[in-house]
Amino acid sequence: MKQITSVQNPFIKSLVLLQEKSKARKQTGTFLIEGQREIELAQKGGYEIETILFLPEISSENEAKKLSRSAEFIEISKEVYQKLAYRDTTEGILAIAKSKNLSLAELNLGENPLILVAEAPEKPGNIGAILRTADAANLDAVIIANPKSDLYSPNIVRSSVGCLFTNNIATGTTEEIIAFLKSKNISIYCATLQNSTGYHTQDYTTPTALVVGTEATGLTHEWRDNATQNIIIPMQGAIDSMNVSVAAAILIFEAKRQRGF
Amino acid sequence: MKQITSVQNPFIKSLVLLQEKSKARKQTGTFLIEGQREIELAQKGGYEIETILFLPEISSENEAKKLSRSAEFIEISKEVYQKLAYRDTTEGILAIAKSKNLSLAELNLGENPLILVAEAPEKPGNIGAILRTADAANLDAVIIANPKSDLYSPNIVRSSVGCLFTNNIATGTTEEIIAFLKSKNISIYCATLQNSTGYHTQDYTTPTALVVGTEATGLTHEWRDNATQNIIIPMQGAIDSMNVSVAAAILIFEAKRQRGF
Repeated sequence: MKQITSVQNPFIKSLVLLQEKSKARKQTGTFLIEGQREIELAQKGGYEIETILFLPEISSENEAKKLSRSAEFIEISKEVYQKLAYRDTTEGILAIAKSKNLSLAELNLGENPLILVAEAPEKPGNIGAILRTADAANLDAVIIANPKSDLYSPNIVRSSVGCLFTNNIATGTTEEIIAFLKSKNISIYCATLQNSTGYHTQDYTTPTALVVGTEATGLTHEWRDNATQNIIIPMQGAIDSMNVSVAAAILIFEAKRQRGF
Repeated sequence: MKQITSVQNPFIKSLVLLQEKSKARKQTGTFLIEGQREIELAQKGGYEIETILFLPEISSENEAKKLSRSAEFIEISKEVYQKLAYRDTTEGILAIAKSKNLSLAELNLGENPLILVAEAPEKPGNIGAILRTADAANLDAVIIANPKSDLYSPNIVRSSVGCLFTNNIATGTTEEIIAFLKSKNISIYCATLQNSTGYHTQDYTTPTALVVGTEATGLTHEWRDNATQNIIIPMQGAIDSMNVSVAAAILIFEAKRQRGF
């Protein structure tokens, strides 16, 4: 069993870069996953696990080996673990996984898809919350338009509690995604304040994409101009904006309700 | 115009305590609000503003005086502002407000109330998100059962973006709230996994309280035992828990939909 005890080890330094730099993730095509459950979900989601690092005081060689037959296993010291992990020492296990390319062309949609599109979501926590809701609703796909960061950033991996791996996810530009949806005859419902009708008056039982924008600026006009219908969640209070993950959940579950779950 | 430039000033030190200590807030019956919009919403919500502190470089005496006729105004230095404020220097204005006692007895309910109850929510961010959704839905009341912290903690004030002031809010023990709801003939729908039926099969058009628990442990048995009906949001993914503010939003907007908004 290979052991690494020094944070000065060049391999460990390269993993710190993976955590900190989008560029390092892109160049290597890999990213880090923290936690037993998250690694399990990544395996189930078809992610290739290259290496598993474990802290024997908390996890164990046995537990690590349950997670993969093909990965390389490395025992690390507490000092190394704390350098790489976000959460204290509650998990004691980390994996290096190969990222997917998340292309629209590779999305595997069902016959009557229900899709969420989020344009340029700003906060990793919001993306994580959207992915959790999408998992609960078993959506056909989540598509991120014009992403502001790569989806394998540690904050998104973490806040999705593994739902980054359980969902079918793609990214693309707004133009590419609109073309993709139109080519598949998927109706586009854009959550917006302009020229919009109550979300609860529309029929989402046929192939449907629900599209949400940012809290600050909403959706770009490309989405609004190409919508089958612009829709609005009626706002009856003093505040005129809604958290984007909350808005997405309301729309997704109205569609699920109409479809009889 | 009174001016304070030193962070060593005893009054400023007492305000730092207000930000940091629940005990200080309780003893004085006051708390701090940051930001023009938030202070405006507090005024609208019937909160008494005792003092307004402004940083002339960003805000101004004029802007401060628009917010209140009766408050005392104090010009503060950048150093003092940064000591008290959470956000950099984007707002430049703070207020000391009197807290309300948030008692059940003082809740002013409409004829056919729709209420959200959240039991022991753990994260300030979740409480803020719930209050934002409740504002959007113009709920009759939000009731926090067995609160884990006082609602005037800076994290909750901040994450609610003013919705702490626009909602009718009460706190109480689970026992008190159940007795209150029963005395008013308000049906109790508890989001839970035990003995529950799909949330979308129930009728929320009569006086209704929707009750949500924590992500980790759900609702206590007192709620489940006293429910008119236990309800569940169908979970069809790999993960078996939902963010509490997302679950609350799905339930609230289904009730609003049934009531025709």
